[in-house]
Amino acid sequence: MGVSGLFISFEGIDGSGKSTQARRLHEALTAQGRDVVLTREPGGSPGAEEIRRLVLEGETDRWSAETEILLFTAARRDHLEKTIRPALARGAVVICDRFADSTRIFQGITRGDLSQTVDQLHDLMIGIEPDLTLLFDLAPEAGLARATARKGHEMRFEDMGLAFQTRARAGFLDLAKRFPRYRVIDGDRSQEIIAAEVLQLVETALLPRAGAR
Amino acid sequence: MGVSGLFISFEGIDGSGKSTQARRLHEALTAQGRDVVLTREPGGSPGAEEIRRLVLEGETDRWSAETEILLFTAARRDHLEKTIRPALARGAVVICDRFADSTRIFQGITRGDLSQTVDQLHDLMIGIEPDLTLLFDLAPEAGLARATARKGHEMRFEDMGLAFQTRARAGFLDLAKRFPRYRVIDGDRSQEIIAAEVLQLVETALLPRAGAR
Repeated sequence: MGVSGLFISFEGIDGSGKSTQARRLHEALTAQGRDVVLTREPGGSPGAEEIRRLVLEGETDRWSAETEILLFTAARRDHLEKTIRPALARGAVVICDRFADSTRIFQGITRGDLSQTVDQLHDLMIGIEPDLTLLFDLAPEAGLARATARKGHEMRFEDMGLAFQTRARAGFLDLAKRFPRYRVIDGDRSQEIIAAEVLQLVETALLPRAGAR
Repeated sequence: MGVSGLFISFEGIDGSGKSTQARRLHEALTAQGRDVVLTREPGGSPGAEEIRRLVLEGETDRWSAETEILLFTAARRDHLEKTIRPALARGAVVICDRFADSTRIFQGITRGDLSQTVDQLHDLMIGIEPDLTLLFDLAPEAGLARATARKGHEMRFEDMGLAFQTRARAGFLDLAKRFPRYRVIDGDRSQEIIAAEVLQLVETALLPRAGAR
């Protein structure tokens, strides 16, 4: 069967610091000489990045939640086939900035209750879940202030405001209770302290694998 | 509940003449003073047309069959919400050049057996089937010759060749046995004779509705 890598997803509301921490973890593990792939969703493969542009640019109400779920799942399928599975198959650590749980939250619960649809679609077309999910938890007010400060052209979700981010935060904390793969990280601390905690959690997750090789 | 329109899909292999016949039917029913919407898949709404470009341009192996099914379903969902349902709700006749059955064939059976996946995805995200489906049946050799003669930039499926078109034709004939909404039309006759048969079939389907109003 060969070696199999470690699949880590980073989740949280916008402005929670997860993308910064994903980059820092990538640097730290690379410095250790490990094979590490840093990727993100939506996107992460050339085809999925094209789908990303289709979904994230344009008006907030451009697509219904249902169409959006389908587009994100299409992007995820491509990302999985072209980037994630090949990396895991050669034993790499895959750090993924957002994965299926972001769809469970942003399309599944914040715009009406579509969580069952999201779960059924995931089971049918994706199947895989991360080995480890790090949730960067932060008060929505703080997250929104950070996200707004760096306002770019991909602002569809940030535009949805504080009520939306509040529902999203609660949703992620619910997922953390539902899935044992979750670790909740307090995002309201210095980048350095958070980075050290992240690295420790990931090294712990890598230990049994190193022993098995 | 109000008036409800008639939803007609045109299906068949490439070069079967269905698009020409869809335009002729649209003209004939419009000349009768009816509210008729001529549309097509993939596409049929601004969002779905963008997804269409993503799927149909580029290399044949650009997307896996699974990703393609998801993209077509996303386009269909948008098309349904923005074009088909509003037209049916106001009582229009909707003529749709390809619908879900094309996905059942081109992604469901011609590239391995994904028919169950296609059907489950359709039940989950689309639900609706046409009231009437006209299958334009033609020998694959004849269809391929016609399709190649008008070769454009959207050639991903035509490029897949004769074996592919042969499996597709057989698949459509199987669907015609499975769904009572199907009428099979011999596509190897003059455009005029076929157009007359199509109009007669559609007028027959419209009769009980006219009476109910």
